[in-house]
Amino acid sequence: MSKVGEKMDAVGLVVEFNPFHNGHRYYVQKAKQVTGADVAVAVMSGDFTQRGEPTIVDKWQRAHAALLNGVDLVVELPICYACQPAHRFAAGALGLLNQLQVKNVAFGAEHPDWDFKKLVAAARDFNQQALKQYNETYATQFNDQLAQRTGVSLKDPNDILAFAYTKAVSAHHYPINLVPIARRGSNYHDEEIHGQIASASAIREAVKEHAAFAPTVPPAMLPVLQAVATVPSWAALYPLLRNQLIQAPVATLAQTYQMAEGLEHRMKEFAERKLTFPGFIHGIKTKRYTYAHLLRLCLYTTLQLTEDEMAAHIDQPFIHILGFNKRGQEYLHQVKKRVAVPMFTKVSQEMKEDLYNLDYRAGKLYQNFTPADQDLKHPPLIIR
Amino acid sequence: MSKVGEKMDAVGLVVEFNPFHNGHRYYVQKAKQVTGADVAVAVMSGDFTQRGEPTIVDKWQRAHAALLNGVDLVVELPICYACQPAHRFAAGALGLLNQLQVKNVAFGAEHPDWDFKKLVAAARDFNQQALKQYNETYATQFNDQLAQRTGVSLKDPNDILAFAYTKAVSAHHYPINLVPIARRGSNYHDEEIHGQIASASAIREAVKEHAAFAPTVPPAMLPVLQAVATVPSWAALYPLLRNQLIQAPVATLAQTYQMAEGLEHRMKEFAERKLTFPGFIHGIKTKRYTYAHLLRLCLYTTLQLTEDEMAAHIDQPFIHILGFNKRGQEYLHQVKKRVAVPMFTKVSQEMKEDLYNLDYRAGKLYQNFTPADQDLKHPPLIIR
Repeated sequence: MSKVGEKMDAVGLVVEFNPFHNGHRYYVQKAKQVTGADVAVAVMSGDFTQRGEPTIVDKWQRAHAALLNGVDLVVELPICYACQPAHRFAAGALGLLNQLQVKNVAFGAEHPDWDFKKLVAAARDFNQQALKQYNETYATQFNDQLAQRTGVSLKDPNDILAFAYTKAVSAHHYPINLVPIARRGSNYHDEEIHGQIASASAIREAVKEHAAFAPTVPPAMLPVLQAVATVPSWAALYPLLRNQLIQAPVATLAQTYQMAEGLEHRMKEFAERKLTFPGFIHGIKTKRYTYAHLLRLCLYTTLQLTEDEMAAHIDQPFIHILGFNKRGQEYLHQVKKRVAVPMFTKVSQEMKEDLYNLDYRAGKLYQNFTPADQDLKHPPLIIR
Repeated sequence: MSKVGEKMDAVGLVVEFNPFHNGHRYYVQKAKQVTGADVAVAVMSGDFTQRGEPTIVDKWQRAHAALLNGVDLVVELPICYACQPAHRFAAGALGLLNQLQVKNVAFGAEHPDWDFKKLVAAARDFNQQALKQYNETYATQFNDQLAQRTGVSLKDPNDILAFAYTKAVSAHHYPINLVPIARRGSNYHDEEIHGQIASASAIREAVKEHAAFAPTVPPAMLPVLQAVATVPSWAALYPLLRNQLIQAPVATLAQTYQMAEGLEHRMKEFAERKLTFPGFIHGIKTKRYTYAHLLRLCLYTTLQLTEDEMAAHIDQPFIHILGFNKRGQEYLHQVKKRVAVPMFTKVSQEMKEDLYNLDYRAGKLYQNFTPADQDLKHPPLIIR
């Protein structure tokens, strides 16, 4: 009997692959194996991470390595979801994976045995007003309330994401099965490299310090990382951010997405006073906001992203296909008729001005690190 | 008989001193000698030139060299006048020199024998509408009309400025005597260095190329120029300009001072396409606009300077004293009671937000070339 007409099952992955390393390769294999999926579909952040930082290499280089290491289809997580706190990040990614009709979503978990549905239910009636009244970060307060009620402390980034995925599936009644995969080897926070499995942050640090990292990444990623002369960072983008904070009136800065509580004055003041990014970011830091929140705010400011513009983009999801292999292509054929949002492989001049405008501008910002054009008319990666 | 109570006469000079060189020293001496002035008062551009380019060293370093070489008082020409075509540049500078009650204004002239009053009178009724209809630069068209009517061709930058000074004095009936000083040695446009007198552009080029220039500048300027590792230029500011052109909506860019005829679209397009400043500026160049006009437009864009803001600054002149020697100080005492605009030696927090805001922001932009704070609470240079 021919394979033609047979329905393929997909497992969805929500990833940054910053960079793609051996731990990711293991996770992709495991996800397919545990779920019995025919196809692995990755929704991957573009050129900026959830923390609002530029990625170590661009999205095309990361997608390419993923496609050579078990992933069959890579789509871009639009920046309006990618550079957001966990709940918006997860909701955006799960929304796209639901459009792509994946049966399962697998994710690395610190505590695969926890009952996240129960935790989500427990947090449903938290007092949002009370959460905002104290001079501590929102995440800390949320976690304190959750720990009081359930005895569970959501501190690990993977647990926080697992919670957010569960909440997104539950809120939208997505027909998606969530599959936690126990992590192997190094902790997310480990800063040292031992053996073949290391955390992405440890690998980035090794690249930055020109230290050894070769055993930790697959062959497809190695030369790309070896070619990185200077690791992309906010230090290099700071002159652009600083000029925006200095030249724009505070009334304009106040319209920036997530700019609240007079932070525009504080950011302007420290931009005027500080010549380097570390001096600036330490200057504006208070207990009220995490570094991740402030880094994202730096990105929103540099992109001149307003509340209104962000709201419009969040309400207008799309699927930008970065690349696929033969199986990924077949899967696209299988699902495309029931995809209810715009789906495309090339960014046209028209999309650049509209649907894809924010991501296009982010790609142009990333061009401070690479001469490679990130989007316009860029063909998808096709692995034969 | 004591000197006390005796009235000092001043000669005003309109300068960029970019950098201060032996030709400038000669010009200052000659100006005092020809006019018999007790005091030389220089109105000097700040950190950006009339062409909209960053100066080779900052205003403090240039003012310092001037004060050690014959100038008695240096005030800053606010950027709303300094980075403008000749007629606005001259009008702004002459307005300040009139406030400072100088008797004469001396300027380097290519044709000291020309009757500029007659030329100004001849141009009074030029058809401004006709001037804007052709696809050529305004200056070229103006000059063609003038040449047709008077036989005189205003092509040399010094002749153009002489014309503008004459027009400003005539329009405002300033009690100022204009004194042309024949230039000595190299032409303004000469790009090679011979002997002790060279053009500022030839000296800048030599500094850039690490070629010999020592005999052409006075001792006060030499170590400062020798310390220049990279000559400040738009090449280094381009990432800031580019990001503004990419991130800001065209409607915002269209509000930029002097942004006309859809140039905002053209500038955005080439910012998106071009990774380097030469590629960008050649890309946007047409016969309609000079490079100087476009460079100034780059500056206005990077400063996010709108028509409204520029108009407000032009209508609010002030005198920012950069430095003086004993004689300059005495002269200030003599004239200060009759100065009708704000005059100050230190930029306060309040001025930074208001009167001096645009110049403050330009100083912050210049900090991309020097860690030295340009303004806030900077004391004036006092030469004993």
